[in-house]
Amino acid sequence: MTAPAPDAVGSGLASAVVGFVGAGQLARMTQRAAIDLSVHLEVLAVQPDDPAVLAGAGHRIGAADDLDALLALARDVDVVTLDHELVPNEHLVALAESGYAVHPTPEAVRFGQDKWHARTHLHRLGFPVPAFQHVGSVDDVAAFAEQHGWPVVLKATHGGYDGRGVRVVDGPADLGAELPGGDWLVEEHVAIATELAVVSARRPSGDRVVYPVVETVQEDGICVELVMPARIDADLGARATALAGDIVDAIGATGIVAVELFVADDGRLLVNELALRPHNSGHATIEGSATSQFHNHLRAVLDWPLGDVSMRAPVAVMVNVLGGPSGAPVGPALPAALAVPGANVHLYGKQARPGRKIGHVTVLGDDASEALERARAATAALRGG
Amino acid sequence: MTAPAPDAVGSGLASAVVGFVGAGQLARMTQRAAIDLSVHLEVLAVQPDDPAVLAGAGHRIGAADDLDALLALARDVDVVTLDHELVPNEHLVALAESGYAVHPTPEAVRFGQDKWHARTHLHRLGFPVPAFQHVGSVDDVAAFAEQHGWPVVLKATHGGYDGRGVRVVDGPADLGAELPGGDWLVEEHVAIATELAVVSARRPSGDRVVYPVVETVQEDGICVELVMPARIDADLGARATALAGDIVDAIGATGIVAVELFVADDGRLLVNELALRPHNSGHATIEGSATSQFHNHLRAVLDWPLGDVSMRAPVAVMVNVLGGPSGAPVGPALPAALAVPGANVHLYGKQARPGRKIGHVTVLGDDASEALERARAATAALRGG
Repeated sequence: MTAPAPDAVGSGLASAVVGFVGAGQLARMTQRAAIDLSVHLEVLAVQPDDPAVLAGAGHRIGAADDLDALLALARDVDVVTLDHELVPNEHLVALAESGYAVHPTPEAVRFGQDKWHARTHLHRLGFPVPAFQHVGSVDDVAAFAEQHGWPVVLKATHGGYDGRGVRVVDGPADLGAELPGGDWLVEEHVAIATELAVVSARRPSGDRVVYPVVETVQEDGICVELVMPARIDADLGARATALAGDIVDAIGATGIVAVELFVADDGRLLVNELALRPHNSGHATIEGSATSQFHNHLRAVLDWPLGDVSMRAPVAVMVNVLGGPSGAPVGPALPAALAVPGANVHLYGKQARPGRKIGHVTVLGDDASEALERARAATAALRGG
Repeated sequence: MTAPAPDAVGSGLASAVVGFVGAGQLARMTQRAAIDLSVHLEVLAVQPDDPAVLAGAGHRIGAADDLDALLALARDVDVVTLDHELVPNEHLVALAESGYAVHPTPEAVRFGQDKWHARTHLHRLGFPVPAFQHVGSVDDVAAFAEQHGWPVVLKATHGGYDGRGVRVVDGPADLGAELPGGDWLVEEHVAIATELAVVSARRPSGDRVVYPVVETVQEDGICVELVMPARIDADLGARATALAGDIVDAIGATGIVAVELFVADDGRLLVNELALRPHNSGHATIEGSATSQFHNHLRAVLDWPLGDVSMRAPVAVMVNVLGGPSGAPVGPALPAALAVPGANVHLYGKQARPGRKIGHVTVLGDDASEALERARAATAALRGG
């Protein structure tokens, strides 16, 4: 029954055309912002039921590691940007060298793709990172632990996210005889007091805005909750903001960048990871900020003036909706979640596999604990809890 | 290059499927809300570049007066709702009689389609309306004017909107020899102190929420600006809110309803028109309210719990973007508009014909005049002014 999609890329009615590599929830929520700005999003999707495709973004099916598909996308759009990091960096370089606009730039994207690159370059630039070292064998790990103490953290240099590719090693007995395949680095195990994230948007021209520092709560390496602004003292907030701003300037990042930080028990503020794209830690900006991270991502990669990042309420909290053990669809539970006062529910149109991020709930308020209680009640309803 | 649209109506990943008759900017902005709720919108569009289709709503091409097209739409969706009033009421009755959910109901929709029906029924129900009378000839008009004084207002009973089908007649000389074709009513010419609009959302179950009263500024019958909340005294505000709530209950309206009111120079509060759909006077709710009219329209027609309608700032103002005399596309001017601090720009993806509503700008703030100044600056930039 559905009529063929219009060739909106060529409709001439869009104010700009932005190509997204990947069609997950980040591209999906950017589609919301694209509607406002009359920007045509064209996504390179894996499947026709990817979240951004179901949200109505223009799309073609193709793999993120297929250079021909990337070149074809680049030809049709004003700028290429990313929903995820799983694009070979050399392909992004090839697009840029062919004269296509790519934001974030391939150089900046490496900081989100290659943990070894990120650690060494941020360290060299003078930014505070945990003690780290490249390792080729279990002996290297043991030697590092001799110096820095057990436990240590083993990280795959590539491809890890949401806790994958990261392993805490408690002692020699826990280490095994050989490292798994791939490229590894070892880090000191930081005793973490608080995890923070700072989301900023930066234009190719250099203008940037930095959102209020966010406090994130991780479980098994997955962000489950956040509070904006973070409940930290003003001095620490100012240091985190300045650090994130300095980093995005130093690496020439463009678009949205999330800088994830550790506050260690010993008071050190350390850089954990960078994400060179809209990020889970920025989801509360949809309702909580004058301009959402998704609007500012589009504005930044198009080199348009950035929007106000001030907050619309004293506090905004977000709780992720993870698929429950039953894998039951979440739709039927939506009315129960909407019955929670002040719950802003976002569903991603994804199959509810256990542990998978399938949506989030944002609540604004005056008090973080009260807002969290509501957001948790709505997510519990969605999980059928 | 664009891959075929997925059969998302049947993807099973949507929390509900809502059919919209019409694919203009109201359906377009509802698509924004539909993404959040994982609702699949399926619009009956006139053309493949209608605003809601460009925004990515599922669509089929068909005429709003084609019963077969309406029946086919109804079969594929959970509920049928409307982007405009240009659907023959008897077709809506036929859908309802075939057992399909239609919200607003055909009975309620008549109040937005037939000015004679609305005037007589609201009057009979005891709601305050201007003095009015059905007229079949210029003599009838003159007789009415004898009683109520010149000028009078001639209104086509059907099909008028944005000032079309409405004519102020200053005196007998202005009347001509014959009425134009169609069905007409005559009304007293109310000396208007202020025009107000009250937007509410009502579920089939009867639950309803009423947004803060809005003050609208019309030029040539077209809404050009609005201020939420209206700058009126609290007592008048309470009377307008109660009046609108009573009306939507009395007529059994469902979904979003806008009640347009006149405050006369002599102090009377009079009902002007009803719109049984998301409405221009509710556009500031996207940023200005905890829940937008578009979210609440979906929630209301699906009989889901309604969202909080409290404001997110002391004041929200909206200025419409009308196509300028040149008809030049508005896209290239977008960056200049975004450079205005606090301007939330919404473009509808429409050709910029002179006088046509092609977008709007919302600004939140503490002071209406200051916010209006910014919103006007952004719209002037979009018009190339």
